[in-house]
Amino acid sequence: METATTRRTRITPEREAELYEAVLDLLREVGYDALTMDAVAARTRSSKATLYRQWGSKPELIAKALRHDKPTSLEDIDTGTLRGDIHAMMARSDDCQMERDTALMRGLFRAIHDNPELHQALRNLLIEPELTGLNDLLRRAVERGEVAADNPALEFVVHMMVGGFAARDLIEDRPVDRAFLAAYIDAVILPALGV
Amino acid sequence: METATTRRTRITPEREAELYEAVLDLLREVGYDALTMDAVAARTRSSKATLYRQWGSKPELIAKALRHDKPTSLEDIDTGTLRGDIHAMMARSDDCQMERDTALMRGLFRAIHDNPELHQALRNLLIEPELTGLNDLLRRAVERGEVAADNPALEFVVHMMVGGFAARDLIEDRPVDRAFLAAYIDAVILPALGV
Repeated sequence: METATTRRTRITPEREAELYEAVLDLLREVGYDALTMDAVAARTRSSKATLYRQWGSKPELIAKALRHDKPTSLEDIDTGTLRGDIHAMMARSDDCQMERDTALMRGLFRAIHDNPELHQALRNLLIEPELTGLNDLLRRAVERGEVAADNPALEFVVHMMVGGFAARDLIEDRPVDRAFLAAYIDAVILPALGV
Repeated sequence: METATTRRTRITPEREAELYEAVLDLLREVGYDALTMDAVAARTRSSKATLYRQWGSKPELIAKALRHDKPTSLEDIDTGTLRGDIHAMMARSDDCQMERDTALMRGLFRAIHDNPELHQALRNLLIEPELTGLNDLLRRAVERGEVAADNPALEFVVHMMVGGFAARDLIEDRPVDRAFLAAYIDAVILPALGV
């Protein structure tokens, strides 16, 4: 971990944020396969050596850029009710960002399955932490007595959430926005949990 | 429509089924972008002229192949209860076919958004008929008094269904199978509908 810390001090947080944004812009523009470390280096005016030293690999760089893009950690959400927590969690992005997120998801969906390394990096850096945060939030709701501990929908909350995003995009061909998510949470997620 | 009928008589149902299967095999192997009419012609030992005369375009051919792959039309499902109908609807494919379907979905997800023509063909031939069938099935449940006519989850059933498939694949990295779908229907879809 010491080397990792040493490495981190070589780049300012502002520069890091700038670089992650450039990576996500490129990802939206050209997709995962066509995104090369050369392109990232050119776009961000950094050397490829620096990119590899700092991030190790393309999947890791992309997974970290995606993680950085999440405006709020789930750990910071604790409103005192499940309804409040879930609405806060689903509304972490504004409407414009949700549309950009959906565009990213589309490109990643296929790439993830063609690239086990990318899938692993996303799993470690993004999916697992989110699932842990979600499970903490649900555990608190069970402890408060809002949801029965044996409610079978508890293990499907992430499926319901993904469905809201994917079907809005794929079937309805409309962007996900806060109004849609708020209606979806109240009509689907909370009733399935018996709230 | 007369010319369409005339065209259809030029090919036997067996030959048509064989051709659709070859198209889906190719789609799984190489993805939408790399699937050419030349490749379909070679694989099925037909002439490109025949393919274009019979199907008009690549998006139409692919959408028809996907529609043909659905083993049961939603119109044939009417068990008398919503629970029975939804379980029958979600279990139209066997486990092996569900895994193949998911592989297809992955490749199509990105292609759909890069190819408006493909999206339109899928919408006309696959998505709209499925949505109509689903709405008929839900309307009957409302008429029987199983679901309140004003239940807000009625408009999100397709989102819940897509979520089951997409998140199982994307987050859990496990294939969708009948056991998972049966549990998901009972834990999520029916409770959200108040059944």
